[in-house]
Amino acid sequence: MNTTAPTAWTLPEIPPLARELEPALRARINNKTKPLGSLGRLEELALKLGLMQATLEPTLAGNGAVLVFAGDHGLADERVSPCPKQITVQMVHNFLAGGAAINAFSRQHGLPLKVVDCGVDGVFPPHPDLVELSMGPGTKNALHEPAMTRDEAWECLARGARLADEIAAQGFAAILPGEMGIGNTSPSALLCSRLLGLPLDECIGRGAGHDDAGLAHKRKILHAVAERHADAVDPVNALAAFGGYEIGMMAGAMLGAAANRRLVVVDGFIATAAVVVASRLRPGVLDYCVFSHASAESGHAKAVRALGVRPLIDFDLRLGEGTGAVLVWPLLLSATVFLRDMATFESAGVSLND
Amino acid sequence: MNTTAPTAWTLPEIPPLARELEPALRARINNKTKPLGSLGRLEELALKLGLMQATLEPTLAGNGAVLVFAGDHGLADERVSPCPKQITVQMVHNFLAGGAAINAFSRQHGLPLKVVDCGVDGVFPPHPDLVELSMGPGTKNALHEPAMTRDEAWECLARGARLADEIAAQGFAAILPGEMGIGNTSPSALLCSRLLGLPLDECIGRGAGHDDAGLAHKRKILHAVAERHADAVDPVNALAAFGGYEIGMMAGAMLGAAANRRLVVVDGFIATAAVVVASRLRPGVLDYCVFSHASAESGHAKAVRALGVRPLIDFDLRLGEGTGAVLVWPLLLSATVFLRDMATFESAGVSLND
Repeated sequence: MNTTAPTAWTLPEIPPLARELEPALRARINNKTKPLGSLGRLEELALKLGLMQATLEPTLAGNGAVLVFAGDHGLADERVSPCPKQITVQMVHNFLAGGAAINAFSRQHGLPLKVVDCGVDGVFPPHPDLVELSMGPGTKNALHEPAMTRDEAWECLARGARLADEIAAQGFAAILPGEMGIGNTSPSALLCSRLLGLPLDECIGRGAGHDDAGLAHKRKILHAVAERHADAVDPVNALAAFGGYEIGMMAGAMLGAAANRRLVVVDGFIATAAVVVASRLRPGVLDYCVFSHASAESGHAKAVRALGVRPLIDFDLRLGEGTGAVLVWPLLLSATVFLRDMATFESAGVSLND
Repeated sequence: MNTTAPTAWTLPEIPPLARELEPALRARINNKTKPLGSLGRLEELALKLGLMQATLEPTLAGNGAVLVFAGDHGLADERVSPCPKQITVQMVHNFLAGGAAINAFSRQHGLPLKVVDCGVDGVFPPHPDLVELSMGPGTKNALHEPAMTRDEAWECLARGARLADEIAAQGFAAILPGEMGIGNTSPSALLCSRLLGLPLDECIGRGAGHDDAGLAHKRKILHAVAERHADAVDPVNALAAFGGYEIGMMAGAMLGAAANRRLVVVDGFIATAAVVVASRLRPGVLDYCVFSHASAESGHAKAVRALGVRPLIDFDLRLGEGTGAVLVWPLLLSATVFLRDMATFESAGVSLND
């Protein structure tokens, strides 16, 4: 599929959290055999999942779907990444062969993985784990023109949301979106800066491993790109101006998952940029997001602070692919497990009183 | 078994890490298909496990043994805990019935759990998950006399170490020690203060949930206990003075595990107090420890800083039982999984050069 024509799609409504269940959920949590509040963030997660799923018995038993959104970036021609552009296509082959970090961790937790070709500069033979949604062989070079048209940006959102609808219809309880795209910390930095009102320099980091000279060059290019598209201030225009296809589809998938009351496990910097786009369109999407980890990519800390969220772990990760999201999956399961399986004070005959 | 007579036992030697393997381990880690260093703390863990196990292919496939050390404290008579003392015995029954948090999380990860009666004020019928090593119905009241004799403290260490020897002989790759004992944040605070040279007030926290008045009372009592045993400055004398049986056996188990090149996954404040005792006897034990979480009990942050270690996660946990250690188990597995399963640049045909 290479059509870039917009299809009929409207932004989905995000249902509000089931706040009316909060007292009953808190009572359930507090009646487990443990000191009040002693499971800390697991208790917060259990509450959030219950409100999301509108139930006193939240579960992730439907499992999570790992979706690796891959796309190429015209801006990579400006050497904004220390890695050559062809690594994107090579890594897609690596994902399909099962050899990447995200494959290893997904297998560890029994999470099925799909690779979504959002627009990689390569052609892939059909593969059971490949979802072909390509918008073309990579975005345009944002230094000279918009990375894509506004229609294409909208189409990315639509394709991502429809994919999430399908995943939800299959019974999955969560999506774990990740990404691959050489150069994609650059549009992420531009999107976070533009849509969160953060200074651009605070959003720019070393990506896959820039040295000081490489970082200085990346800063120079990104300032020029920002200036070139100074008028792209609404989320869809900013997405069109800066790219990329994979960020747009990830944002769409997040909107679609939230519309279906599914948990979105947010990975690192690029996934957070997608949340920024999505949440500017539908703020309610944040109610369905859990931020998995504090990335070592320097812009991430600024973005999560601006969003007012606190990632679950800080493991100095900066790999992407969805690895941070998948790594915390067992901790999310633990939040449902204690609520389901622990005895209550009454059932266990444990008395807080003398 | 209620004998408190010392048996022939000497402190085990802790083998040094296999530092000679470090270059080869780093090369293996760096040749995986990912940007250099991008798996952050997972890479540190993979290296540490390789050095510990003296292999380029570290594994936790032998699984981990969850050991919940339970004991009562004479000092609980002084109301240093907001909970009544009989909760210890009630919770042991809860562990054996499978209803506690540590049961739920251990089942989640397929980790077998044993409850070790180190000296609880109760009698338990035989149970396949109960290890009976009782030193008696609880320690003495440390406000008036030493919690136990020096011989008893030594015996606790010996029993814990022998238990770890058995666990190692069964092929387990790791121990995950936890504890239960109403009042045991008090001896933990006293041990951390005395053996790490920290101000006592910095080591005293709200435990299971003291209000301000309860906390002030706890402070007053613990200062009196510290003064009563001002001469208990070496680790075995301090353990004898302050208790408890479960802290001593945990410390012994840590020494035994390290002597067998087994990983020790350290839980929160009380487990860290046991590490403090163990590491004052054999500093090398720290090479085999991974600190699972930063506890919400206020003394823990001071203790881990004094030890120079950085816990893996910060989840505001303050439950004990070993819950933090068990919760991070999948993250430890992930450190072995990426090293075992990921493709190399060569095998995947991914090239860092143009």
